[in-house]
Amino acid sequence: MMPSSYPSVLLEKAVHEFAKLPGVGRKTAMRLVLHLLRQDVATVEALSGALLTLRKDVRYCRVCHNISDTETCAICANPKRDASLVCVVESIRDVMAVEATGQYSGLYHVLGGIISPLDGIGPSDLQIDSLLERAQSGTVQEIILALPSTMEGDTTNFYLFRKLEPTGIRMSVIARGIAIGDELEYTDEITLGRSIANRTEFKGVG
Amino acid sequence: MMPSSYPSVLLEKAVHEFAKLPGVGRKTAMRLVLHLLRQDVATVEALSGALLTLRKDVRYCRVCHNISDTETCAICANPKRDASLVCVVESIRDVMAVEATGQYSGLYHVLGGIISPLDGIGPSDLQIDSLLERAQSGTVQEIILALPSTMEGDTTNFYLFRKLEPTGIRMSVIARGIAIGDELEYTDEITLGRSIANRTEFKGVG
Repeated sequence: MMPSSYPSVLLEKAVHEFAKLPGVGRKTAMRLVLHLLRQDVATVEALSGALLTLRKDVRYCRVCHNISDTETCAICANPKRDASLVCVVESIRDVMAVEATGQYSGLYHVLGGIISPLDGIGPSDLQIDSLLERAQSGTVQEIILALPSTMEGDTTNFYLFRKLEPTGIRMSVIARGIAIGDELEYTDEITLGRSIANRTEFKGVG
Repeated sequence: MMPSSYPSVLLEKAVHEFAKLPGVGRKTAMRLVLHLLRQDVATVEALSGALLTLRKDVRYCRVCHNISDTETCAICANPKRDASLVCVVESIRDVMAVEATGQYSGLYHVLGGIISPLDGIGPSDLQIDSLLERAQSGTVQEIILALPSTMEGDTTNFYLFRKLEPTGIRMSVIARGIAIGDELEYTDEITLGRSIANRTEFKGVG
């Protein structure tokens, strides 16, 4: 069913605003709005307030551009982290994904997107100048590129490589290959091909 | 990936509030919150404001309990609608679904739920008293039960039937059967069985 008309303008407006979110259609928006109608005013105030406060008071780390409540984020400010390693990622979510592995002790640099001419995103829209500054500061010894393995990701990798090459800093790209637990026969040809080309030395343990 | 720790308390709070919505997990909440972070403050204010205004200023029709911006909703106030017919539904969404068919010209009665002992919902939690009042007012000639065809829906139908029987008003239940376009072989046994038992006379056109 696709509602043709709403019984209330307030309801229509709330559904309309909710349905602007990516992946939220009119039916889902309606379901969520009717759910909120059944909650206490305090619950709706909490959601509504949290969203607005975040958007208004959000701050980004002045070093790595990760979201932060302080001028320098907790990762950049942590003296136990290895400041000679910088992992370049597309977004905050990628920082959280790498952090969740618990296997990386260096710092990050959040580009805020990747070069995508079709979406009108060029190098000047991204945090590339500040990455160059960090690279030239003398502390950084290796830059790890951890961007998506898409056409846009490859383009951005190549652009960054050209920009950073003169600094003489070591540059690496995270390994692409068959995910742990995946079977060869169900792996796409490009991944499998790359995985064979970029094979690593076997030292007795997988 | 499951983020173990958030880089910002404001971010965590917004994700936490979003993830309270039904069907919205932490990952979806994170995606939506990061999307809102990329929008103008005005866009976030529009969403946040629409939700809070709706919840605070919501009104329900004093006759049928449908959501409404006025004391009596547009359907109940419309003199062209047939006031002798009342269609009993579980929620506002059902009113919108029936309205979308464009084939019903009577009024509605929104129960606000169905009897469900397991969820702690009894008759007194629903708009049943006001339905009885409407039935006794003398205007209503037929009550159409359009509740879900579940155990709870059947229980509620039976309860309403027992309550309304003394009024002598004609009571009907919407037809259950095979959906238009569906094939017999893929229809569940109960629906198919009911569909045969409740067969209607064939008058030359389907």
